[in-house]
Amino acid sequence: MTDCQGVAEGASTPMELYERLGAQGEKVRSLKSAKAEKAEVDAAVQLLLMLKMDYKRMTGQDYKAGCPPSDNVGAPNNGPAADGAGEEDTVDPWNVSTTNANGVDYDKLIVRFGSSKIDKELVDRIERVCGQKPHRFLRRGVFFSHRDMHQVLDAYEKHKSFYLYTGRGPSSEAMHVGHLIPFIFTKWLQDMFDIPLVIQLTDDEKYLWKDLTVEECHRFAIENAKDIIACGFDLNKTFIFSDLDYMGASPEFYRNVVKIQKHVTFNQVKGIFGFTDSDCIGKISFPAIQAAPSFSNSFPHIFGSRKDIQCLIPCAIDQDPYFRMTRDVAPRIGFPKPALLHSTFFPALQGAQTKMSASDANSSIFLTDAPKQIKNKINKHAFSGGKDTVEEHRKYGGNADVDVSFMYLTFFLEDDEQLEKIRQDYTSGALLTGELKKILIETLQPMIAQHQERRKQVTDEIVKQFMTPRPLNFKL
Amino acid sequence: MTDCQGVAEGASTPMELYERLGAQGEKVRSLKSAKAEKAEVDAAVQLLLMLKMDYKRMTGQDYKAGCPPSDNVGAPNNGPAADGAGEEDTVDPWNVSTTNANGVDYDKLIVRFGSSKIDKELVDRIERVCGQKPHRFLRRGVFFSHRDMHQVLDAYEKHKSFYLYTGRGPSSEAMHVGHLIPFIFTKWLQDMFDIPLVIQLTDDEKYLWKDLTVEECHRFAIENAKDIIACGFDLNKTFIFSDLDYMGASPEFYRNVVKIQKHVTFNQVKGIFGFTDSDCIGKISFPAIQAAPSFSNSFPHIFGSRKDIQCLIPCAIDQDPYFRMTRDVAPRIGFPKPALLHSTFFPALQGAQTKMSASDANSSIFLTDAPKQIKNKINKHAFSGGKDTVEEHRKYGGNADVDVSFMYLTFFLEDDEQLEKIRQDYTSGALLTGELKKILIETLQPMIAQHQERRKQVTDEIVKQFMTPRPLNFKL
Repeated sequence: MTDCQGVAEGASTPMELYERLGAQGEKVRSLKSAKAEKAEVDAAVQLLLMLKMDYKRMTGQDYKAGCPPSDNVGAPNNGPAADGAGEEDTVDPWNVSTTNANGVDYDKLIVRFGSSKIDKELVDRIERVCGQKPHRFLRRGVFFSHRDMHQVLDAYEKHKSFYLYTGRGPSSEAMHVGHLIPFIFTKWLQDMFDIPLVIQLTDDEKYLWKDLTVEECHRFAIENAKDIIACGFDLNKTFIFSDLDYMGASPEFYRNVVKIQKHVTFNQVKGIFGFTDSDCIGKISFPAIQAAPSFSNSFPHIFGSRKDIQCLIPCAIDQDPYFRMTRDVAPRIGFPKPALLHSTFFPALQGAQTKMSASDANSSIFLTDAPKQIKNKINKHAFSGGKDTVEEHRKYGGNADVDVSFMYLTFFLEDDEQLEKIRQDYTSGALLTGELKKILIETLQPMIAQHQERRKQVTDEIVKQFMTPRPLNFKL
Repeated sequence: MTDCQGVAEGASTPMELYERLGAQGEKVRSLKSAKAEKAEVDAAVQLLLMLKMDYKRMTGQDYKAGCPPSDNVGAPNNGPAADGAGEEDTVDPWNVSTTNANGVDYDKLIVRFGSSKIDKELVDRIERVCGQKPHRFLRRGVFFSHRDMHQVLDAYEKHKSFYLYTGRGPSSEAMHVGHLIPFIFTKWLQDMFDIPLVIQLTDDEKYLWKDLTVEECHRFAIENAKDIIACGFDLNKTFIFSDLDYMGASPEFYRNVVKIQKHVTFNQVKGIFGFTDSDCIGKISFPAIQAAPSFSNSFPHIFGSRKDIQCLIPCAIDQDPYFRMTRDVAPRIGFPKPALLHSTFFPALQGAQTKMSASDANSSIFLTDAPKQIKNKINKHAFSGGKDTVEEHRKYGGNADVDVSFMYLTFFLEDDEQLEKIRQDYTSGALLTGELKKILIETLQPMIAQHQERRKQVTDEIVKQFMTPRPLNFKL
């Protein structure tokens, strides 16, 4: 509990706390409008959230700006809150932010994006179709939203197969555990359905968006490919490609890119991605490059000239704008729309307000971290939902919903019963924050060590094999 | 003279003609603003120009709207004329139009584009450097403008070589004689300087701009390549490529495209090419693809990793916007600026107001035309600068400056003395229009027949050889 100091000290009444909350909300707003340093804004938001939790504990109500503590429990909160911390979540391929301690409101996102919730019915159906227990990411709502997954299963049940497509933007050498989520799940899907998989490394995108050279981005793509391969993909069924390489190795891929580029206007990408007239023409046309692998004839070495094979894309929800665009274009150029499975974001150690950043070493557990680093980072930085003192914690219990260590366990601890017991014990106060962190450390340390061991086995030759355009071994 | 009827019939005084000109100018304006059919507008403009010539003949003065015929000879004409026919020439990669019978005002274009005139000094210098008589296109101002040609020659004299780059947008199977101008000249440059040449066929551009399929555009590229090869290029020194093929065959080419795309904003291409928010993202990013062959490391099979070899681009002046952009980007991504040699436009048979159109069979002589078609087209459609009757022509002489047959001879008749004699005889009235046309017919018929003969020799295998990325044979 060392990392979650009591913040409401000195506030003896709900009204005092309410006033401190108002002042802190004001501070967050002014820091944001003054475009203060990210660290400073984050700290202020963090304090605001802690004060909110204190307020809820003290009053049993959610804090709402403009509604002083009274009897107005459950007063409807229409429109964006005015406290600087309740604005609509920002979710696009380059920005993910929320000011809610629980993270992004995913139900709202489903409505906003027009996708469908992965409900129990769909999870049960997947279980029936593959004849195996659904992956923990499905059981626990990590993959929470989809497009056309029922259609994919309908076809599959009629022996019409599909292929998987996922990807990564290689902006640095270092990947963190959160980056593994789509790959862990995609590997499971590949194993379950026994189908081919293409993995796009958008090194061209990273060159266009970041202050990096073409050569650096390409090198990051190769390094990231090693981590991806270490997830255990089947060489006979998996093709990994760097855009910078594959665009120059496949006329069919470029033909599809140009077809997409002909059918999307600047007005459209402006609306979808928020591009402006000051953006470079590379950014403006890039969405077509992320769209093209959704069409099977982009990979003639795998699918020949067949353009009718459905694509299923497991990805984090922030990538959905690319595929909304793709689905809009697909029928106009004679291709099937790709289906999607969307995951939630993996929280930063500091809390669920933001997606993790590969550029902040303390924001997550990296795949290169040594056991001691893992232990220290979790103990020092993992945001806790526990109480300020052992006594209070035993008495009131902790809040698993905002506790990052618990969140990480929902991603990586396989045993449902054990996870539920941890949740109950933490909520009741039987399990202390230090004990919870210890469970996480003991879960991640061997997992990362095994990953590192597998990555060591990935030679340059193996990378080359995965990244060579070639036939894959499958039946469609 | 059958194709140039007197139009000023019934106008007995300069003032009557002045009034008819005013009315005709008004008609052109209203047709243009009503977006009337192109043919209708062209006809009205043609009549306007003829009336202007009649007016000049009758008064000895140029017609100027708002200046009735009087003694005001040589009154300054400031600002754009208000007669609907004296507007600024339009010259960009997709539109070339002027309403002057003499064609585009190239001196003005040099000022507007900021290029340099190819003056006698430069032509003499080229003659000294290659030790050969300059090509007739240089002697006669067909190539009239340049960028950095002196710098290219400075380096060449210090034994630092360069390479040539030109291209074509394959919008149809049929090429006309005007399309050969850059290739005839480029072949001469290749022979003179003994240097490598790359020829880009922008089939991707044609797909993006026209209502054509990818497959059609690619087929047109291959067909056009045959006509280009028939110009006599040296297989050992020439690489011809379709964008749709080469983009997917060269990671180095794509890397340069992305580098250019990162350094050009939408604002810039909007300013240069007039793109709007409704244009597709393919058009918006295309200029980078036409720019990339200006950099030698786009062709590693030819130049290895060398990126310092200067490029010289012979092209029609309407392509200059692409290369203004390229020259702006080049130093920012570490490449030398390409040098340029600009040609005038080849006039349509109907007159020098517009560039020819491959989609109008009567607008030019096509490379597939039979001798009889050539004869009929010239006799029927070639705009004449002759007088209405033989008697008048003998008395007043013809106007070679607006006579399309004479213009064509300046492009294709090699003998300077013969050409000058034709000009003098036509101007004096000694040579009739029918006789002038006969000389052109007898010049073009064997030229086209020989082209067709050479094209027949161009097998699919030869096309494939030219279009295969491979080392070329040269010393830099």
